[in-house]
Amino acid sequence: MRVTVSKRAHFNAAHRLYRKDWNDEKNIAIFGKCSNPNYHGHNYELIVSVTGEIDEETGYVIDIKMLKSIVKTHIEDHFDHKNLNIEVPEFEDLNPTAENIVVVIYNKIKPHLKPSLDLEVTLFETARNFVKYSGK
Amino acid sequence: MRVTVSKRAHFNAAHRLYRKDWNDEKNIAIFGKCSNPNYHGHNYELIVSVTGEIDEETGYVIDIKMLKSIVKTHIEDHFDHKNLNIEVPEFEDLNPTAENIVVVIYNKIKPHLKPSLDLEVTLFETARNFVKYSGK
Amino acid sequence: MRVTVSKRAHFNAAHRLYRKDWNDEKNIAIFGKCSNPNYHGHNYELIVSVTGEIDEETGYVIDIKMLKSIVKTHIEDHFDHKNLNIEVPEFEDLNPTAENIVVVIYNKIKPHLKPSLDLEVTLFETARNFVKYSGK
Amino acid sequence: MRVTVSKRAHFNAAHRLYRKDWNDEKNIAIFGKCSNPNYHGHNYELIVSVTGEIDEETGYVIDIKMLKSIVKTHIEDHFDHKNLNIEVPEFEDLNPTAENIVVVIYNKIKPHLKPSLDLEVTLFETARNFVKYSGK
Amino acid sequence: MRVTVSKRAHFNAAHRLYRKDWNDEKNIAIFGKCSNPNYHGHNYELIVSVTGEIDEETGYVIDIKMLKSIVKTHIEDHFDHKNLNIEVPEFEDLNPTAENIVVVIYNKIKPHLKPSLDLEVTLFETARNFVKYSGK
Amino acid sequence: MRVTVSKRAHFNAAHRLYRKDWNDEKNIAIFGKCSNPNYHGHNYELIVSVTGEIDEETGYVIDIKMLKSIVKTHIEDHFDHKNLNIEVPEFEDLNPTAENIVVVIYNKIKPHLKPSLDLEVTLFETARNFVKYSGK
Repeated sequence: MRVTVSKRAHFNAAHRLYRKDWNDEKNIAIFGKCSNPNYHGHNYELIVSVTGEIDEETGYVIDIKMLKSIVKTHIEDHFDHKNLNIEVPEFEDLNPTAENIVVVIYNKIKPHLKPSLDLEVTLFETARNFVKYSGK
Repeated sequence: MRVTVSKRAHFNAAHRLYRKDWNDEKNIAIFGKCSNPNYHGHNYELIVSVTGEIDEETGYVIDIKMLKSIVKTHIEDHFDHKNLNIEVPEFEDLNPTAENIVVVIYNKIKPHLKPSLDLEVTLFETARNFVKYSGK
Repeated sequence: MRVTVSKRAHFNAAHRLYRKDWNDEKNIAIFGKCSNPNYHGHNYELIVSVTGEIDEETGYVIDIKMLKSIVKTHIEDHFDHKNLNIEVPEFEDLNPTAENIVVVIYNKIKPHLKPSLDLEVTLFETARNFVKYSGK
Repeated sequence: MRVTVSKRAHFNAAHRLYRKDWNDEKNIAIFGKCSNPNYHGHNYELIVSVTGEIDEETGYVIDIKMLKSIVKTHIEDHFDHKNLNIEVPEFEDLNPTAENIVVVIYNKIKPHLKPSLDLEVTLFETARNFVKYSGK
Repeated sequence: MRVTVSKRAHFNAAHRLYRKDWNDEKNIAIFGKCSNPNYHGHNYELIVSVTGEIDEETGYVIDIKMLKSIVKTHIEDHFDHKNLNIEVPEFEDLNPTAENIVVVIYNKIKPHLKPSLDLEVTLFETARNFVKYSGK
Repeated sequence: MRVTVSKRAHFNAAHRLYRKDWNDEKNIAIFGKCSNPNYHGHNYELIVSVTGEIDEETGYVIDIKMLKSIVKTHIEDHFDHKNLNIEVPEFEDLNPTAENIVVVIYNKIKPHLKPSLDLEVTLFETARNFVKYSGK
């Protein structure tokens, strides 16, 4: 019996879509207003979903308090109220599109889970635009 | 690294569940108040989800502005503020159940995506009733 | 101690914005696609709010089961899966704008409440467009 | 063409995380405030998703009125306004974690569906914590 | 320039509608399944709204971190994962209807605000049933 | 019959809480992580509510297409994908707290409404923190 356990989390951050190896004109031509050099920002909302067998003793797939703590330590404390381009090292040479952010988040959480657990991360940039990654 | 990118959209429309080859009595016997000959309507909410590899240059699976434009041109402009039974040719001989609508929407979007991209469409008839189709 | 008690309800309906004393051209010139002669529709969501003193014996301002029943009998059963223009007598000579609908709903509920209770009705035509009326 | 049809439902219930074969101290050491001997409670929100072929005659995968009725009879009437530990027999010897509840719900609904239909159940314990089970 | 600042909060609790001076039969006759002697529960969601002048120096009506802290200390820590009837002293002789709970919450928060600030509290027992109190 | 008509809108922006006449240390001491010199950001969600008499001819308090257009021209086009501190002139010498932003928005919309119409603006900085201003 494999069950998926999901936990929502969130962080607020500034970013711009930007490649260092392109000048501002090219960045704006490709990324439009999302590449504003003065940045814009989002309330990023996150769903972290872990799939595995139910532990017969506890009735848990994973203690959700532990999952919440992993997400707080490795994601929220790392991204919240930050400028992703300037202050989050993973984006020093990586364009912080929603697609790239969700892969970074997946890679930061996965090592803290038991290998038998599958992970899927959904990231809402807005309520109407969102991305999902499960390591495949 | 295959990531899923999702975009919400919406349209308001009137419809009735109805088969032309049945009379009103049979339609109402099977479909109940959903077959009211004077129509009823919904705020249809749509999630269009596209799965593919992240493009290394842009960091996008698909430019979400392009996805939004495809959905606007081929779905919203086609269905919004319309009577599905009377004004949308796809339902001339097809009962506009949520199931049939979501398949029609899938088939109208799919040709406008690169063949390497997978598509899944979720259609909310109300916040509590919804359907999903991914071409399988 | 006056407390406000609110109950959500909903109905799905078709309508068009339309004045009988104008022809279709003038209706469409003023009301745009909302005046489509073949109708469109909405999931109308309703918040019915009743304000009054807390009854010391029950701890209720109004038994919310009774409020739910009033709304079901006088609003949901009357509007749900209907064509507002054709099937709801209140709109025989009244244009079913959101503003006019919320006043009709207020007037249909108010007589069923004790006179000491104040009423406010909020009507969502969509999640992004809504109206409110409190009898003033 | 396999389409997934989903229906939301809900019930309010009290519970505590608790194993009868552990004493209160051990239960509280493992489950924290969720094991409060006086119980706490939730508004459980449920999504029941059924996947199958569209019936050519009706345009339905399943008549959603029938799905609603199955969920009402076998889940809502059985769990709503109940104390899960004391009043729901399935939890007499089973700790009512979200994971165990969602498996119980799946097992109670599945026999009432045609064998050709796949079932997935999502259970929200809160808007931020939820679980999903599809019988695998 | 008086502005209203609102903060959402939440707690999960068990309760039953119950008057000690009535027997179980009378409680159940009046309060129905909400008076189940084994309790049921809710995810209570709270909006705390404070109205006052904008402070010219900070641009705040109230530092929302301070408002969050007041609500956490005096409401969330006091009600969360509790049985309201048994464990919250305010309800020792007071029926924990939504109306009575919102007044108790108002009275617990008000003394911690500067007298120049107005307070309004909205309490959601479910997403469809909620109450509001502003001390009038 | 005075009815309130509300329209939701939204913009994404970067900002920092900051007074030019204080140094970074003092700004951070008072405003905490909200004063990060590299900025953070939000999906700001807006409800613009206009109250007035129903026009007997149209059944409108205000044509919601016109209200949408006013909000688009004077707010969304002005704030969306901008850095509020750097790019929005109103905040050149005004700390962009939610309170100050909502007053600025009110003042930008009010002159475009007929004087007989009352205006209230609600601004969500996040789903859990929001402010409201009605010109009083």
